[in-house]
Amino acid sequence: MPKVSSRILNMQASPIRKLAPLAIDAESRGIKVHHLNIGQPDVKTPRVFLDAFKEYDESVLKYSESQGVKETLDSFVEYYKKWNIEFNNEDILVTNGGSEAILFAIMAVADYGDNVLMPEPFYTNYNGFAESAGVDVSSFITKAENGFRLPDEDIICSSINSKTRAIVISNPGNPTGVVYTVDEVKLLCKIANDYDLFIIADEVYREFVYDGLEFTSFMHMKGYEDRIILIDSISKRYSACGARVGLVASKNRDIIENILKLCQSRLCVPTIEQIAVAKLINVEDSYFTEVRNEYECRRNLVYSALSNMEGVICEKPTGAFYVIAKLPINDSEDFIKWLLTDYSINGETVMLAPAAGFYATDGLGKDEVRISYCINCENLKKAMTILENGLKEYIKIKL
Amino acid sequence: MPKVSSRILNMQASPIRKLAPLAIDAESRGIKVHHLNIGQPDVKTPRVFLDAFKEYDESVLKYSESQGVKETLDSFVEYYKKWNIEFNNEDILVTNGGSEAILFAIMAVADYGDNVLMPEPFYTNYNGFAESAGVDVSSFITKAENGFRLPDEDIICSSINSKTRAIVISNPGNPTGVVYTVDEVKLLCKIANDYDLFIIADEVYREFVYDGLEFTSFMHMKGYEDRIILIDSISKRYSACGARVGLVASKNRDIIENILKLCQSRLCVPTIEQIAVAKLINVEDSYFTEVRNEYECRRNLVYSALSNMEGVICEKPTGAFYVIAKLPINDSEDFIKWLLTDYSINGETVMLAPAAGFYATDGLGKDEVRISYCINCENLKKAMTILENGLKEYIKIKL
Repeated sequence: MPKVSSRILNMQASPIRKLAPLAIDAESRGIKVHHLNIGQPDVKTPRVFLDAFKEYDESVLKYSESQGVKETLDSFVEYYKKWNIEFNNEDILVTNGGSEAILFAIMAVADYGDNVLMPEPFYTNYNGFAESAGVDVSSFITKAENGFRLPDEDIICSSINSKTRAIVISNPGNPTGVVYTVDEVKLLCKIANDYDLFIIADEVYREFVYDGLEFTSFMHMKGYEDRIILIDSISKRYSACGARVGLVASKNRDIIENILKLCQSRLCVPTIEQIAVAKLINVEDSYFTEVRNEYECRRNLVYSALSNMEGVICEKPTGAFYVIAKLPINDSEDFIKWLLTDYSINGETVMLAPAAGFYATDGLGKDEVRISYCINCENLKKAMTILENGLKEYIKIKL
Repeated sequence: MPKVSSRILNMQASPIRKLAPLAIDAESRGIKVHHLNIGQPDVKTPRVFLDAFKEYDESVLKYSESQGVKETLDSFVEYYKKWNIEFNNEDILVTNGGSEAILFAIMAVADYGDNVLMPEPFYTNYNGFAESAGVDVSSFITKAENGFRLPDEDIICSSINSKTRAIVISNPGNPTGVVYTVDEVKLLCKIANDYDLFIIADEVYREFVYDGLEFTSFMHMKGYEDRIILIDSISKRYSACGARVGLVASKNRDIIENILKLCQSRLCVPTIEQIAVAKLINVEDSYFTEVRNEYECRRNLVYSALSNMEGVICEKPTGAFYVIAKLPINDSEDFIKWLLTDYSINGETVMLAPAAGFYATDGLGKDEVRISYCINCENLKKAMTILENGLKEYIKIKL
């Protein structure tokens, strides 16, 4: 029998989703599992969006344009104006979620054997997309104890070689929750300029910035626009993960015209979803304020709980809805499995994502977990209590 | 400024979609354009499907499972039973249209520099997906004058080398309209066996087989199941192209488990679409009979019109809703452009797809067009009259 390709064999299973069978198993035993493993918000999707599905009234569900439905493109252009980002319709291509945007961007900048540079830990699927495209990951390390801030310029640059084509970075950071300062954003632009790289800037958590910090988009950096390939998605912003609508945007015509060929090859993004997305421009600013305040509370709750756990290291995250915590154990995946198979309090347990899958360097993150604080404070409180007690128990039994 | 990757630079623009700007331009001049370039059916999408969008009643539009929504998988398993194809839920992965299924299948069987074998002409996006994945296309030629039937075994095998990983084939054929006989399907299975290849079998036009011919699925070939990767889509079957729901299915566990990693990396297919697709199992058989009869009429109309045009070569297609016609001109793309920019009858013109983009071998198909007969007979009749007269006029002026 012929073999599957090496590229796909080498891909890791998603650290966010691979332990799902154990969670399903626990649930079938009547255990309530608090899912802190996945960035699935419990916030309500705006009514105006869901209503658009009810209002769809065509009798033939046709293909839409490969670059995206015009109203949808219009709505994105409007949206970016609020963030002082100037895009025109022809700068934007609608994609199947931010996921496809990342895959297409990597394919567009890197050939087989080329590499893309990213800080570790990174959003795990960056690795998956690169692998599937035959592109290597080059990385520099950022650390829990420094709040995952960028290291010095020379450390970053030491990971660049002649095959490096782009810096891939999420800001605010998934899984770190870091929000890069204007100086950090500038530094990466300078490096991209010095080494003639693209920047694939994943800014899907733009709205989720806490403590009154200001968000700096890579698109705000004057003079670097042609190097920036912006990745975006409505999934988190509007709690509409299941819609799978994202985009890739750039002022670089070459990039957009060539990625359009990829868009044409898969024909289009679902038509009705796009029509619904166009309506989201009508969501009022108060929606974002409320959502941000809610997440800030959750962040405070999680951070304070983690800070009180003996031996746990984590800096206060300031963005997105994730935190990476270093635990006083050797193998977080084993711990997470154990929580699902052997532990519960009053019939409830908690599921986390093992952090090793968010690193490229072997061995890194083995004692870390990614916690997503997408569930409401009441459940989050219970989940943190379970985690705290579970951790003590696990250490007692296993270490 | 850094350059875009070679793989994406080398991709051709879609022959189906690249002339769209000229059509838009013609339409803005008040010309009615009959679109025979694209496989966008005018048949009504089943009401049960469209109603499902209205009935969706969750308040948070969540991610669904990476492999697909259970009800959707169930419905596909049911559907295949009608075709005597035995799949279980775990053999199937729901994808973003047949398009993603093809891309994932190619990625799963071939590494960079490997090749996949296909008959020319082929569905143009096979080429695009292969190119974007760094996979070469190897091909053998089938001809309009032979109705695009498979050539002899030795001709097919002479295009196989040590880097060949799979045969990629659509049955019924897009763009040829050929329906392979059981002997042809068997021959490809035998070759796959002899050379240890997978078969990526794109059977999205299964329902569109005319003249009482029987459809043979690659899944009907006993003993070869582990080599078959089935590509499917609801787009054409239910006239729901804009839903973008397809699937990849195989009895080969290795293939499914590894493609699942690709599915996980892009998280999921849109949730509401999948719920709607699950309802399609309730569409009555009479729907397919009616639709098939309608397309058979259209096929007859188009074939008869083409047969009456001087110098045009085409065999009667027996499946899908395409026909490749060889025209007595040198450059079909120039002719198609001219139809859009310089020609009309009573303010109407016609748009076709230049066939060269459906071939891998340079120079082939330059005098051919692909005609999609997805529009109703009344318009189709007008379109064929425009084509006939336009062709005469073009020959008079240009040749």
